[in-house]
Amino acid sequence: MIYNIDPQFEQRLNEVADRITVALDQLIPPATGPEAQLMRAMRHGALSKGKRLRPFITIEVGRMFGAPEKALLRAAAAVECIHAYSLIHDDLPCMDDDDFRRGQPTVHKAFDEATAVLAGDALQALAFEIMVSPETHRDALMRCKLVERLAVASGPRGMVGGQMIDMNPITEGEEPLQILARMQRLKTGALITLAGEVGALLGGAVEAERHAISGYTNDLGLAFQIVDDLLDVEGDPSLLGKATEKDLEAGKVNFVSLLGVDGAKDRVRYLAAQAKQHLASFGSRATSLLHTVDFVLNRRH
Amino acid sequence: MIYNIDPQFEQRLNEVADRITVALDQLIPPATGPEAQLMRAMRHGALSKGKRLRPFITIEVGRMFGAPEKALLRAAAAVECIHAYSLIHDDLPCMDDDDFRRGQPTVHKAFDEATAVLAGDALQALAFEIMVSPETHRDALMRCKLVERLAVASGPRGMVGGQMIDMNPITEGEEPLQILARMQRLKTGALITLAGEVGALLGGAVEAERHAISGYTNDLGLAFQIVDDLLDVEGDPSLLGKATEKDLEAGKVNFVSLLGVDGAKDRVRYLAAQAKQHLASFGSRATSLLHTVDFVLNRRH
Repeated sequence: MIYNIDPQFEQRLNEVADRITVALDQLIPPATGPEAQLMRAMRHGALSKGKRLRPFITIEVGRMFGAPEKALLRAAAAVECIHAYSLIHDDLPCMDDDDFRRGQPTVHKAFDEATAVLAGDALQALAFEIMVSPETHRDALMRCKLVERLAVASGPRGMVGGQMIDMNPITEGEEPLQILARMQRLKTGALITLAGEVGALLGGAVEAERHAISGYTNDLGLAFQIVDDLLDVEGDPSLLGKATEKDLEAGKVNFVSLLGVDGAKDRVRYLAAQAKQHLASFGSRATSLLHTVDFVLNRRH
Repeated sequence: MIYNIDPQFEQRLNEVADRITVALDQLIPPATGPEAQLMRAMRHGALSKGKRLRPFITIEVGRMFGAPEKALLRAAAAVECIHAYSLIHDDLPCMDDDDFRRGQPTVHKAFDEATAVLAGDALQALAFEIMVSPETHRDALMRCKLVERLAVASGPRGMVGGQMIDMNPITEGEEPLQILARMQRLKTGALITLAGEVGALLGGAVEAERHAISGYTNDLGLAFQIVDDLLDVEGDPSLLGKATEKDLEAGKVNFVSLLGVDGAKDRVRYLAAQAKQHLASFGSRATSLLHTVDFVLNRRH
């Protein structure tokens, strides 16, 4: 499953990641006053070097539809705030209990647990504050749509619901693969799908175009998760910047334990082809989103 | 400091509390699917018998300005979701480590810590989902204003910032009373002030009226906190439904340790008079909000 990543694509990915980091640096309040530790912890969690895949999808989808750059950057930063908060909370001792993230100590290790809970809480509130601001879009109805999508995708029937299943699934009468698929669709899928929707909304995409984008992000999100599970088995902890074999140690089922390594790899290839197929009608305008599929398949961390 | 609470006022307070509980019961998703435990924990945290002071303020301020009832109820429920999430997170072992709240086990005791973190996270997202919905108000610009105020009041420069100061204040070069006042203004004050603002916005209050309401809620919020600190020293744990002398045991300064019991009571009386003064221009329309001041002063839990 080795693909050549287009060097121009990688440059674009890095450029967007840097712009998101700069934007978050400006959007997170300065660390002043007796509550300064909160802002330092928010920065620790949100400004560390990440792939920035979700905001990249927002920006690339939005560009394809001609959305204004400033709106895209702010909305993408809001999406990334939600992602960053979820990582901070997922890493807590009572959740996945991870000491390292992106090669540096997790927020509760660099600070303490209370600060990590609060930094996550504050990043969630900040995401909504950024999204609803007139600086993001002049049209209030558009801002309401963005806020509504953000709230649903990150809430009990979205990301947080998925994390609940991951922690403590109620399994009566359901197939493990069905539960796992729902867990993935909520925990990682909802926010990746949202990232595409936000770009499509800001670009004024029509119904059929939005449908194609959500087909693309659904397949991409699932492929992303299966690759994650493969990396948990086959990955290099020093490249990943975090521990591996976490699921095995925790006795958790994942796509590799259910499908096997070869079965999981087959599924990823199938999803990748299907994701690309959803973009067919956009022709060469979708080049960057096509490369994104290869990037997700090829990632080593 | 015993005042007679008007029986009609108490009835009104209880009626509003019941309506908020019914509204939250309808707004929190049903406990179905493999993530059902999340919704059960959200319900445990949000539906337990509380004073519902914040949503009461929203509804009473809104009624005074003639705001539509349905809008008020939904917006008030959103405010209460934020309050409920903050209690769930504040009770965590890594924060205030409380086993009881409103006379029943806290969410992390009834479920577990991971579930409590997630239930709080989900209630925050739900608050924004409720507030931004067209069912709350038909005008998108109004919804944006409400969401913006909610995000700021609950975020790093609001409620969460206040909780950070409470956990780990950075005290260099500042007076203890100044830090404590900032902590209170953010931790409890911001959401109580927001509760009034939401009602005033929905009622179409003019600038001077909104200014009077925020003066009232600022004084009321500070009085509320000082009474809380007095109850921590003088209160009855069985009436409070939670442990007392928490601050003393934790070695924390509070208004009673800084001002003394008599000094704290004097301050409460002064703030109460000042809060009522802000309402003078509203005449008899403000009767319920005037009674609210007495209620806050008189509360035993």
